[in-house]
Amino acid sequence: MKYTVYTLFPQLISLWAQEALLGRANEKGVISLDARDLRKFANDKHNRVDDTPYGGGAGMVIRVDVAVRAIEEIRAETPPPDEIILLSPVGEPLSQPMVEELAGKDHLCLIAGRYEGFDARLEAYVSREVSIGDFVLMGGEVAALALIEATARLIPGVLGAADSHHQDSFSTGLLDYPEYTRPTSFDGIAVPEILLSGHHQKIRSWRRKQALQRTLERRPDLLDSAELTDEDRAYLEELRNET
Amino acid sequence: MKYTVYTLFPQLISLWAQEALLGRANEKGVISLDARDLRKFANDKHNRVDDTPYGGGAGMVIRVDVAVRAIEEIRAETPPPDEIILLSPVGEPLSQPMVEELAGKDHLCLIAGRYEGFDARLEAYVSREVSIGDFVLMGGEVAALALIEATARLIPGVLGAADSHHQDSFSTGLLDYPEYTRPTSFDGIAVPEILLSGHHQKIRSWRRKQALQRTLERRPDLLDSAELTDEDRAYLEELRNET
Repeated sequence: MKYTVYTLFPQLISLWAQEALLGRANEKGVISLDARDLRKFANDKHNRVDDTPYGGGAGMVIRVDVAVRAIEEIRAETPPPDEIILLSPVGEPLSQPMVEELAGKDHLCLIAGRYEGFDARLEAYVSREVSIGDFVLMGGEVAALALIEATARLIPGVLGAADSHHQDSFSTGLLDYPEYTRPTSFDGIAVPEILLSGHHQKIRSWRRKQALQRTLERRPDLLDSAELTDEDRAYLEELRNET
Repeated sequence: MKYTVYTLFPQLISLWAQEALLGRANEKGVISLDARDLRKFANDKHNRVDDTPYGGGAGMVIRVDVAVRAIEEIRAETPPPDEIILLSPVGEPLSQPMVEELAGKDHLCLIAGRYEGFDARLEAYVSREVSIGDFVLMGGEVAALALIEATARLIPGVLGAADSHHQDSFSTGLLDYPEYTRPTSFDGIAVPEILLSGHHQKIRSWRRKQALQRTLERRPDLLDSAELTDEDRAYLEELRNET
């Protein structure tokens, strides 16, 4: 997977291409992460990418012509991007199903704004607008990194055995079950005995129940779209009756 | 506001303390952003912070004792943190109201994990768990940066006039209206005439209607909790009847 990010602060992205899991994947060539400066597409003598909003109001708006020149650049390269994604609080909320879809592409171009965002005419030049949540950031860079991390970890060869994603939160539609490791007892709190029992079948069943209980307690909204067995439903009913 | 972030990759955070708006706020002393290495709290000879999960399964789990030693360190400092926040996909979803609450604190301590996350016993030592969305990241660092950016921009002195937040998406419960700037016409698409009219009252009304329409089309779920006037409701009814 190739990621190309246009931003006014490419260094905020490019460091992430050198560290930790993304850095390792970049080094191995499983992904490539290229951050480019939007400012080079300014074509006035002051190198300005933004201007005041028509109709008044605080803040500066990034010019559509500047962003469209960036899009023309990347469209002319090989491979051209499969998607041109604008990170924006008015976009479609990022979700694990969208992440899975995007992880199957070969080249994603991400456009991150700052200030009051982009001139709205840019919408016609992108394939989608994506938001990472109902909160406002200082710019699209954090959102771009969220999208990159979430998709990259699904690409074969990116995660090692130490970082498996088979039982993640959301991959089953439920929150993840609790995990425990050494020490067996810490500050008077012991690891649940079942996990030390060696009964794999019972452990699997306990974990499923924990995931169901956590989801019911913290995010009951997720249960509407989770894939549940009859046994799951019976257990949820039991939990609901207890309270 | 003081932010202390514990992570296995402090450099992924600390660069953000030197660039763009966060960098400027950090330099001016309006915020301070300190990223610390969780690894220094490992106390075995191999510097290990994680171990295999009890009960089996892929992935590594970060030890509770390691994280608790970090918490003890920050609790002993002045000022101690008002909140100790674990970034986790099983946490409460970050929202603009939560951002506004957290922005009023003096010191936030954020704990970012990697791998399969932390030993579940850590939950008893933190004041809350926060998730930035229903997708899985490679670690908590991106989520920590999202929380930092979202809260820091509400702190007086962080945003200049060029970066106002008075009419942001979500601050009114609606998506933001579209913004436009020069050029007046681009690729055959003109800026809406009303914005060039100079009629401030009409512009305000147009923008409100645009925000309502955008929210209705893209995120109708937000309308349930948005603050709406009778006029807003009448306009939404009109839009619904059109389609």
